[in-house]
Amino acid sequence: MLEGLIALDAETGPLPERIYRALAGAVRTGRIKPGAMLPSSRRLAAHLVVSRNSVNAAYELLRADGIIRVRRGAAPVVVADVRLERPEIAPAIRTPGLSTRGEVMAVNLRSASGLRHAGRLEPGAPDEALFPADLWARTLRRVARRRYGAAAIYGEVEGLAALKTALSGYLERLRGVKASPHQILVVPSTQSALSLVAHCLADPGDRALVESPGYFGARTAFHGAGLSVGAMAVDGEGADPASIAGEPAPRLIYVTPSHHYPTGARMTLQRRLDLLDYARRSGAVIIEDDYDSEFLWQGRAIAALQGISQGSEVIYTGTTAKSLLPGLRLAYMVVPEALVAPMAQAHRTLGLRANIHAQAALVEVIESGALATQLRRIAQIYEERGRLLVEGLRARIGPAIAVAMPMGGLQTVVRVSQAVDDVALAAALAGDGYETPSLSSYCAGRPERGLVVGFADADARRVARFADRLDAALRLT
Amino acid sequence: MLEGLIALDAETGPLPERIYRALAGAVRTGRIKPGAMLPSSRRLAAHLVVSRNSVNAAYELLRADGIIRVRRGAAPVVVADVRLERPEIAPAIRTPGLSTRGEVMAVNLRSASGLRHAGRLEPGAPDEALFPADLWARTLRRVARRRYGAAAIYGEVEGLAALKTALSGYLERLRGVKASPHQILVVPSTQSALSLVAHCLADPGDRALVESPGYFGARTAFHGAGLSVGAMAVDGEGADPASIAGEPAPRLIYVTPSHHYPTGARMTLQRRLDLLDYARRSGAVIIEDDYDSEFLWQGRAIAALQGISQGSEVIYTGTTAKSLLPGLRLAYMVVPEALVAPMAQAHRTLGLRANIHAQAALVEVIESGALATQLRRIAQIYEERGRLLVEGLRARIGPAIAVAMPMGGLQTVVRVSQAVDDVALAAALAGDGYETPSLSSYCAGRPERGLVVGFADADARRVARFADRLDAALRLT
Repeated sequence: MLEGLIALDAETGPLPERIYRALAGAVRTGRIKPGAMLPSSRRLAAHLVVSRNSVNAAYELLRADGIIRVRRGAAPVVVADVRLERPEIAPAIRTPGLSTRGEVMAVNLRSASGLRHAGRLEPGAPDEALFPADLWARTLRRVARRRYGAAAIYGEVEGLAALKTALSGYLERLRGVKASPHQILVVPSTQSALSLVAHCLADPGDRALVESPGYFGARTAFHGAGLSVGAMAVDGEGADPASIAGEPAPRLIYVTPSHHYPTGARMTLQRRLDLLDYARRSGAVIIEDDYDSEFLWQGRAIAALQGISQGSEVIYTGTTAKSLLPGLRLAYMVVPEALVAPMAQAHRTLGLRANIHAQAALVEVIESGALATQLRRIAQIYEERGRLLVEGLRARIGPAIAVAMPMGGLQTVVRVSQAVDDVALAAALAGDGYETPSLSSYCAGRPERGLVVGFADADARRVARFADRLDAALRLT
Repeated sequence: MLEGLIALDAETGPLPERIYRALAGAVRTGRIKPGAMLPSSRRLAAHLVVSRNSVNAAYELLRADGIIRVRRGAAPVVVADVRLERPEIAPAIRTPGLSTRGEVMAVNLRSASGLRHAGRLEPGAPDEALFPADLWARTLRRVARRRYGAAAIYGEVEGLAALKTALSGYLERLRGVKASPHQILVVPSTQSALSLVAHCLADPGDRALVESPGYFGARTAFHGAGLSVGAMAVDGEGADPASIAGEPAPRLIYVTPSHHYPTGARMTLQRRLDLLDYARRSGAVIIEDDYDSEFLWQGRAIAALQGISQGSEVIYTGTTAKSLLPGLRLAYMVVPEALVAPMAQAHRTLGLRANIHAQAALVEVIESGALATQLRRIAQIYEERGRLLVEGLRARIGPAIAVAMPMGGLQTVVRVSQAVDDVALAAALAGDGYETPSLSSYCAGRPERGLVVGFADADARRVARFADRLDAALRLT
């Protein structure tokens, strides 16, 4: 029997890796021949006095390496054409018990890119002090005393009917979105909306395009769903459909047309029409993430891409995370008519449910006009803070950087020479407590150099200190 | 051109299916030859005056049938070896744009089984009137005024640190669960916990076992994740591990050991130990759904399975849906140490986030003792209502039914003779406004006959009327 040919070395280290090394070594040295049948994981586990999980994990590593072939219900077989000279590799250790797709879903792209959620001037992070806490607290108190009938139990799990109605009007008024209430699905976060779309509309290996530079969460959601992620170039006119001509057609295209994340560019009408046309011709679905367009201080009147579509090319997503508070965990999506029934069911299957009281409170602040007041207020304040940041940096640093005056939102991009190592630059600033990640870490395609800098928490003193630190760091790099 | 050969029949029905029939018919009768190039979907859509989506859906059906070959960017081609004698089939209409896994996730098993969420005496549905709305409203008002720092923005997305700490103590005190705070993941619903586990720990085609009869949501989550779902028998001693001996080992085993759903059986200690042993030997992971054990009125002191495990065989899930209100969308899971990091990342990737104010309010009611008071209160009330239902049914109907006195929870099972068509029985009662589904619809294995009847909304008059209707319906079936 083959078991006799397999022995673990005395090394310490995770068991799956030791078993993998022993087996790969035996194949490589010819002790186990191509075509040979390996013992079942149960038998080998008993022989080595290890858990069956460890053997299975080792077999999975061998399979991923192309050393063995595994069929359900049959013993693994050493592949006939295994390259015996295969170099010794250190495989990624599989966490015991994770499925193949679980391994993919558990990859932390963000930490691999050095992005954290901590520190000053963080992009994308609203100022908690601008959340209308008293109003929200009073509203919550009122709505929590109501009875909701079936909606409080297991009904309306894909969103309170009252909220869908309110959002339908709100999105039409503010964003030109065409959505009847039943097309709206309420979800805990934009991240969950992106994952839901990725699973419902694309299979593992299918292609998704993201903007480069672009939003990290979209790459995470698509990668986590096993998709192959490609890049669409972005310039001052927003995402450029011409940059993807001739490439394999994607299933999904993620864009932030009204206010590009993180550069703030606005997609031109011509490009919008081109992208819609491309989607119609290729059968791709566009995901329009309209995360902060209700409080742009310039150009808010420009309608969402969804509103100029023919209704089936675009899935629209929006959120309360920027206008109110990320902690509410309250976002929404508008799906094309043909996808309403299946995506609502998938939403139920995945359990992507939002708190009933937060939903009811959002209805109240939409209908009372309090949300509109909030949007005007934060637009004004964030505009001041954005100007403070941009003017402060320009005055202090001058031509070594290029920084655009933002038209909205919570962050802008500070570009530096392509010769600068922006990862090192961001790391130096992180050491001083600034969460201003490198622009290149936002790029899925060709890296661009710079920093993504938030201004939601900017004040004159903080900007001055940051400008000093950035200036010094630029001189060093 | 080929368009001339294609005409829609006068039948009504979904357009994609009509186009599919026309094309398949033309190929089958030889009007369109093998190897012929079909028009682009745009051209055919214009010719037939239908939407391009409909043509694409029809092409997809033809492709799935092996009648045409489709390559991106090229016109579809009729395959050379198409079997012209292929029988006329009625294909399942694929929703345009759904992925293969999306199709699976979008299957509504519940509605296929006739389960709804509406009507009186619904199992699993708590009484909204018992939710401590005033207390919760006041608590929400207080916690919504606080600042949470990073946790309000994008930190602590897998659960507020304060809630994890509170739950760690709560679950140890009440349920004997061994969990340090970092092992806890907060999620919007048990459904999302089950889907997260299914994706992280099992690949499509992997085997999961559920109890039969058993909880519908588990079947939905596993089926939605593409798993092959098998059944473990349940009797008066709970789920029976002996019933799965000799079968292919599953990746996941879903159980409700402390209070079986829906029969109310409690798993014996011997079976618990046997199941844990089976999991260790087979490498399966047990999901313990402890959905209502904090307010059992008998046997609450019996610890959770997780507490007697060696720490890595069991993923524990709990929820506020039964003790407080499903609308809070607030549940939690305890994952084994080795799975904390990857499952927390998968949780972030899927965006399974719970509202911060509901989380903070739960901390308050745990720490103030108000939740303990609530649990005692509802246990007493539900016990009375359960007794009312059971005694009312026994007195009115007698030996034609067998109904167990519940030890907790919100529902019990009314068994009838195996000769009774319980689906018809449930349908008859649904016609009278009772949501008391057939027991057989809860069975993944051998069907058992009866009704699953809730008592959260039971009172003497409702029970008497229901008993009358059930008695009459039993005489008819």
